[in-house]
Amino acid sequence: MPDIDAHSELLRLRKSIDNIDAALTHILAERFKCTQKVGALKAEHGLPAADPSREAWQIARLRELATESELAPGFAEKWFSFVVTEVLHHHARIARRE
Amino acid sequence: MPDIDAHSELLRLRKSIDNIDAALTHILAERFKCTQKVGALKAEHGLPAADPSREAWQIARLRELATESELAPGFAEKWFSFVVTEVLHHHARIARRE
Repeated sequence: MPDIDAHSELLRLRKSIDNIDAALTHILAERFKCTQKVGALKAEHGLPAADPSREAWQIARLRELATESELAPGFAEKWFSFVVTEVLHHHARIARRE
Repeated sequence: MPDIDAHSELLRLRKSIDNIDAALTHILAERFKCTQKVGALKAEHGLPAADPSREAWQIARLRELATESELAPGFAEKWFSFVVTEVLHHHARIARRE
């Protein structure tokens, strides 16, 4: 591929990546709205912030969904753990305020 | 809120979180398809895997999008860095195969 075509292709791919990142950011914002409500409910009812059996189920499901959509299941699991760690910090903060 | 209502509300929120996670997984899969093509192009043309000026622009943009959608901008940035780190590992692997 000549350099000029490669450059156009790179710009085209970057535009798609930017659109995808905007979508991911907005969907993550909605996810945090849900988990903030979960955190408030758990704090109000004295439930523990973490739920290891639900998390194990979520990871197994996301690994399957990742495989179906050709995403590395190991990455899906790492990504999920990264988000859950953040959510648990939020839950702990909410519980301290209750 | 009585415990039984809290439990129904928790289940309702978890179903939404599960739907959102499926959407995020599928969109992430599409993002990786784009970045794999970027990695192959960069390797073919001897371009460096990382592009700090583009990454700075992406972070500034995602922080703005996060603020608009009420997601903590610090979290949007951490999440983006987490994904980019994974992408750069992929680029390095692709470049070694070229």
